Order: sequence, then C-alpha cells, then structure tokens
Amino acid sequence: MTGVYPHRHLLGIEPLQPSDIEAILDTALALREVLDRPIKKVPALRGKTVVNLFYEASTRTRASFEIAEKVLSADSLSIATTTASVQKGETLLDTARNLEAMNPDMIVIRHASSGAPHFLARHCRSAIVNAGDGAHEHPTQALLDAFTLRQKKGRLAGLRVAIVGDVMHSRVARSNVWLLTKMGADVILCAPPTLMPPGIEQLAAVTHRIDEAVEGADAIMMLRIQQERMTGGYFPSTREYHVRFGLTGERVKRAKKDVVILHPGPMNRGVEIASEVADGPYSVILDQVTNGVAVRMAVLYLLLGGGGEAAA
Amino acid sequence: MTGVYPHRHLLGIEPLQPSDIEAILDTALALREVLDRPIKKVPALRGKTVVNLFYEASTRTRASFEIAEKVLSADSLSIATTTASVQKGETLLDTARNLEAMNPDMIVIRHASSGAPHFLARHCRSAIVNAGDGAHEHPTQALLDAFTLRQKKGRLAGLRVAIVGDVMHSRVARSNVWLLTKMGADVILCAPPTLMPPGIEQLAAVTHRIDEAVEGADAIMMLRIQQERMTGGYFPSTREYHVRFGLTGERVKRAKKDVVILHPGPMNRGVEIASEVADGPYSVILDQVTNGVAVRMAVLYLLLGGGGEAAA
Amino acid sequence: MTGVYPHRHLLGIEPLQPSDIEAILDTALALREVLDRPIKKVPALRGKTVVNLFYEASTRTRASFEIAEKVLSADSLSIATTTASVQKGETLLDTARNLEAMNPDMIVIRHASSGAPHFLARHCRSAIVNAGDGAHEHPTQALLDAFTLRQKKGRLAGLRVAIVGDVMHSRVARSNVWLLTKMGADVILCAPPTLMPPGIEQLAAVTHRIDEAVEGADAIMMLRIQQERMTGGYFPSTREYHVRFGLTGERVKRAKKDVVILHPGPMNRGVEIASEVADGPYSVILDQVTNGVAVRMAVLYLLLGGGGEAAA
Repeated sequence: MTGVYPHRHLLGIEPLQPSDIEAILDTALALREVLDRPIKKVPALRGKTVVNLFYEASTRTRASFEIAEKVLSADSLSIATTTASVQKGETLLDTARNLEAMNPDMIVIRHASSGAPHFLARHCRSAIVNAGDGAHEHPTQALLDAFTLRQKKGRLAGLRVAIVGDVMHSRVARSNVWLLTKMGADVILCAPPTLMPPGIEQLAAVTHRIDEAVEGADAIMMLRIQQERMTGGYFPSTREYHVRFGLTGERVKRAKKDVVILHPGPMNRGVEIASEVADGPYSVILDQVTNGVAVRMAVLYLLLGGGGEAAA
Repeated sequence: MTGVYPHRHLLGIEPLQPSDIEAILDTALALREVLDRPIKKVPALRGKTVVNLFYEASTRTRASFEIAEKVLSADSLSIATTTASVQKGETLLDTARNLEAMNPDMIVIRHASSGAPHFLARHCRSAIVNAGDGAHEHPTQALLDAFTLRQKKGRLAGLRVAIVGDVMHSRVARSNVWLLTKMGADVILCAPPTLMPPGIEQLAAVTHRIDEAVEGADAIMMLRIQQERMTGGYFPSTREYHVRFGLTGERVKRAKKDVVILHPGPMNRGVEIASEVADGPYSVILDQVTNGVAVRMAVLYLLLGGGGEAAA
Repeated sequence: MTGVYPHRHLLGIEPLQPSDIEAILDTALALREVLDRPIKKVPALRGKTVVNLFYEASTRTRASFEIAEKVLSADSLSIATTTASVQKGETLLDTARNLEAMNPDMIVIRHASSGAPHFLARHCRSAIVNAGDGAHEHPTQALLDAFTLRQKKGRLAGLRVAIVGDVMHSRVARSNVWLLTKMGADVILCAPPTLMPPGIEQLAAVTHRIDEAVEGADAIMMLRIQQERMTGGYFPSTREYHVRFGLTGERVKRAKKDVVILHPGPMNRGVEIASEVADGPYSVILDQVTNGVAVRMAVLYLLLGGGGEAAA
C-alpha cells in the first residue's frame, strides 16, 4: 500500500500500466489475510457508500463485491434489474445520475452493453468499477486470476497460459489477454473458428486445437460456454463441444506437471470441463473465488481510501 | 431539532400542520451536511430496525430510504413483492403483523392501494412511513420538493408553483398540493381534461393550457406520464402529449427568469419534459434526489430518535 | 449459555439430544430480552459473515434470520433464487462451494429438496443451518414453537399437543413431532387420509377427526394448506376442507380451557383456521414470530460464537 493509486475508476485492464496492476495485486495480498481472521472486519471504508448496480443476474460477482464491502465496513446498496425502476424506461444515464445524486462514493456496475461503465465515468462524479460490461471487459476477474497465478506460480512473466473456449463473447478472456500480455506472460487462445474474434492474433497466439493450446502450459483458463451459444448454432452439440474443446484429465497430461487450471464459473460440468478436472489436484477454481474477495477489497480500498484519511 | 415532533407516523401531508412541515424541513437542513462529509455516518439510530416493505417496484425511493437508514446507522431490511411470500396469498395485515412481531421500530411501506399505510398504522405498534400509496399521497416526495424549493427560493409562502401532467393519478401532485397550499404557495394545476381529478379546483387553480400554467411561475413541477396511461386512451399519443403538455425550452421562457424546474423521476424524456429542459440551467432535478436522502433522514430521526435517548 | 454446544450445524431436530434442545431454548431465553431494548444490538457476532441462501420464496423466515443476524452484529448476505445465477444451471454443490470459498462463517439454506442442507454439511466447512428442506425438516420453526409453548405453559413434558393439517407435506409437522416427542410431550396428528404419511403412527398418535385431535389439548398447531394441494385433488375444495379440518371457535372449546393455538404462517384464513381463532384470545401466533428471532439468534450464537472469543 505504498504510494497513491493514480486512477479514479477501474473501467478495464486495457488502460492500466503494469505498475497499476502490481499495486492492486500487492494491496490484495496485504488485505487477503483479513479474510482468515476470526473477526473479518476492518474499519478502512467506514462511512463510505457503494452502490452495486447489476443489470445482469450474478451470484458470485455480486456476493464477492458485497462481502468485500462489508469486510471493509463500507455501507452497500445493491440494485438488481429485476427489482429496478430501470424497467420504467429510464435511461442508464438518468438512473446513474439519480443514484449519484444520493452521494455514493462508488458505483459498481454490471451491464450487458460494452462501454456502459465508461459512459458513467464520463458523466458521474462517483468512482466507477466495471463488474463486467457486455463482451468487453471484466477487470476484477482478470485481476483475481492474476492474483491466483502469482500465488501459485510466484510470477506472471514468462508463464505460458492457454485460454480455451468461447473467446469471442468472453469479457473474461479479453481482460485476461490484456493483463497477461502486459505482465509478460505468453498467451495462447483456443476456440472453435466460429467463436474466435477476428484480429485477436495481434494480441496472442491462436489455435483451434485444444491439444496444441494446452501443450506445455503453466496454466489453463477454461471459459464458460453460455447457454445461448449452445443453442445458437455455434457448434453442433454440447457433447460435440466437449469432445473437441472440453478439458479432460487426458488433455491435462499434455500441460506442465505443475499446471494450474482456472475457470471463472459457473461451470458447465461435462461441457467445457470434465468433473475430474474441475475437482482434481490441479484445479485452483475455489482459490480464485476466495482471492476474488481480496482483489475486490483492494480495488475498493485503492479507489476509495488509499490516499485519504481512511487509509491512516 | 428543537422540541419533540408530535406524530408517531408519517402517513401523508394532509394531516400535518405547517409547524410539522417546518420541523421536518429544519431537521433535514441540519442533517443535510452529513451527506457532504467524507465519512457519511452518524450513530443516531444505532440499534433501531427499519423494514422497507415495497409492494411496487422502486429504485430511487427505496435506495433513498436505505441510504438514509444506513447514514443514521439503523439496521434495515428490505422486502420487495417479487421475493415476498405476499404471493402466497397472505393479507397485508397478516404480513405487517408478522413483520411487526419481529420488533422493528419502523415500517416504510409502498403499496398500490390508497390507505394501506393508514391501515397499518391502525393495527401496528411500529412507526409507519408512507412511501407512496396508490394515487393518494407520497409525503416524503412533497417534503423533498419543498426542501428544494426553500433551498433555491428561500421560502415557500407566496411562490407561484405550476404542477403539470397526469394530476389525476399522481400521488406526488396530491401531496404537493396539500403541502404547498398549507405553506402559503399559490398552486396552479395543468392536465388534459381526462387526467384532471374532478373537484380539485377547491384546492388549487386549474387550467388545461400549459402556457397559462407556467406563465410567471417561480417553479414548475412536471409529473411523470406512466406507461399504462400512454396506452390507456387518455391522450392520442406520446408525441401529441409532448406537443400539448410537454415542457420545452420555449415554454420555460414564459416563467420567471429564475424559475426552477422539478420532476420526481423517472423522466420520460421527450414526453412530459424535453431533454434541453431536464438538463438545462433551471433544472433542480438532481438536487431533489440529494435532498430526498436528507428529508428521509429527518423523518427517520424525528419519528425514531427525536425525543428519545438516541437524540442525545 | 453454560458449556459449549456440541454441534457444528443445525440440520434437523431428529439428530438432536434433549439437552441440545434445552441449550438452544435456554440461550434463546437469555437473548430474548435484547429484542425489548431500545437499542437492539449486541456485538456478539461482529465480523462474522452469514450467507442466507434461499431457493424458495420466503418473507418471514428470511426476515427473521436477517434481523437475528443484524441484532448480533453479524454481516449478512442474502441470495434468492430469482436473482441468483443458480438459473445458469450450476449445481447446488458448485454454488455452495463458491459461496464458501468467500469464507462465510455460516450458510443458512432453504431448498425444495429434502437433504440439501445435509449435502452441504458434508462438502462445506461453513456451519450449515437448515431453514427448511423440502418436506423434511424446518428445525428453527420447531424450536420457536417449543420456545413459545415453554413460555406459555412452563414446560414441554406431558403436554398434549394436536398437530392438524397437511401432515404429509409439512416439514413443520415433521420437526415438531421429533422435538415434542423427544421432550416428553404427547403428540396427536390429524390429517385427511390423503395427507397423512404412512408409518407416522410409529412416532405419534393419529386420527382423521379434528374433534378427537383437539379434545383436551394443551396446544393446537395448525398447518398451512399450500396452494398446490388445494388444486391437487387431495380434498374436494377449500370450503370442504374448512368444514372438516378447519379450526373454528366451536372446536377450540373441546380443548383445555387454557389451550394455546399456533400456526407457522402464512395463514389461509377461512381454510385451515377461522379468523376468530387466529385473532382470538388463545392464539399465540404473533408470539411465535417474535420468539422466532430469539431462537435464530440462539442458533447463530451457539454455532458461531458460543465457544469462542466472541462469547467473552
């Protein structure tokens, strides 16, 4: 927690410097131990108000942010679309301006449209955190993945990381490609041709064969196949998908002996990942979840308290 | 915060004395500055429990109450109809009695039926706050409007206030008519003939022409046209409504030079209000939202803590 | 609050010893008075996190747990199915493991499947509390019923308790039969033949005639007829059900002069219970609700704080 974090918002990984990423990961490491205490509570953000504005259903991301907020003693208010007057036809901007007029210190937003958090950041005074915007970015997910990799591997630079699945529609993949390449890891992307975004080869290596992707990998990140893709004609069937792109115990053997396997959840067992892998010795999937709370605590702390009186 | 507020509940504006309204507005003014502090938290209502029982969807009113409750350190519990066992067919009274048996200090209720809060007040021991009951009253909205008018104009008495829109179905209009006339303002109501309640001319001046309503006005309050009216045959089309009753920049010129423009939100831009007006220099719409938190803090404080040990 | 409570979870009444039940009831009695204080707040569980994971709609049970958590200063997080990513097809186990990876101290679960809490207890480290699992058990309901009986009657042993209604589908009935028989009460069950579970006569007396069931009773527990039974052909009509199994003022006269009448809510007035009885002098239905908060406080306290530093 040295120095002052230079950004007001966390909109994505793309605009961050490696030093920003390191600042977040280091702060998360310092805050991580609070979660193992019997009394998981520090007063760092007492009297700060955070609005969690979720336009898409979410259990784990919302729960992770809410727990991070409570551990840091912030007051939090969660608004989900299903109960929101959003349905009354108000624009995103009016909703956000109205929430902001209630003087929250931060708005955490998940929205189906790419760029929604950036739009808010241009028009609102509150700190904005992107909790997932369309197929664009999901920065706290990439940060918790990086935290987990660093925890297990001691470094990010030089790691060979395979990212496998629906790369095209995945904000998780996009944020991870930015983060990992900025930090000096080698990324190889693997997807069916219909699910690989054109032009992505500028940023990372590309293959359509999972066996090639996982060969010699230090880490394998599996992406969730979303229900709407399964029925959308992107591939013949979930069974077929599993055969061609699912991570099985057999395929894991191609990776390094000490490979770690990540998944952002929720998992489709037997589709993109076999249960033997999800629950096997290389899986760090539950570590990701635990680390997610620490990383979100770090983001809250750096954006809301890092330079001010609450940090004292 | 002088003296003891004489009411147990806030059911509507109609039964209040001008001195009651002044007590709430003065308390809100005293509490307002807490919202500008870096640590927005005072212990006034620590250990008090407030149940927010919302039978109608709401973002801003519920969020405003929840933030007010948290700033004052009350514990709050929000129950929305969509997740409520209300759907199991239980009566409002049984639901309220059951909640009350859990010993909350206050129930904030929004309900589609006029009189629902009064019904609870007759049968429950908790303090009851009306957060909107059918087309009847929405007292905290009128109070925050009055707070905003007093903030911008220094007074309420003698102000000429135009209220324009669906007066018939508007609890906001009804509460404002009561409040403003009690406090000595001159109110003129403007609505299409199909949306003007019969008999209302006993309380305020009436016109069907917006140009006449806004002429020389100190304040213009625009009312939301609800979706169900738009399709209900009350007027030919939203386009037609905008032409005849929408507040445009041109029409604002008929008002006083220092007119202020209010809207309870959520706005239908291009229907009852043009964006140039909503976002223009006379708009105090976002001030209303901020002041709403302060006014609700004042109501909570006066009903729960004003005369007791928590006020010390 | 003498000694250390010997269980990590509260999965049901069936596995408990009478001494366990007494420990919970005694602790609830000690904590009950906090609810009558002007400041209803004790720091016993400060820094403990409780996740309320509700796969079935519930107002009163969820509200009761949430209030108990807040009074004891725990941080709580509520997840309802309607807003949960459960709908994304994740298994219960993955959802629970993910929530658990966020380090909550307790998961309170309501689920439509019998045994869901036991399944979590086998696979999670958190303390698990069953808030109702299918037609299996609802232990905190039976505990609050027992607390209320002891409060009104001074004892459980030797009481004659009639349980009337849809015994077959009722987790409330099942938990109460276990609790009351363990504590030495005499239980008589009354249901239509289609709604009486086979084999239940091993545990309690059985009748199909309500007049026989309530004869000389110290307490009558009425069960809720669920909407789906009403239309499921289990009995001809709600009117017919009321005539044959509804508790009327006339029928109450057959019980002891100081009989108490319980109902877990929500009530179907005019179906299983007449309003004159629900609101009459023998009804302790609202006492049950108030006591429910105290009993849940006791469960939280014993499972989370009873033996540790928070109890100091």
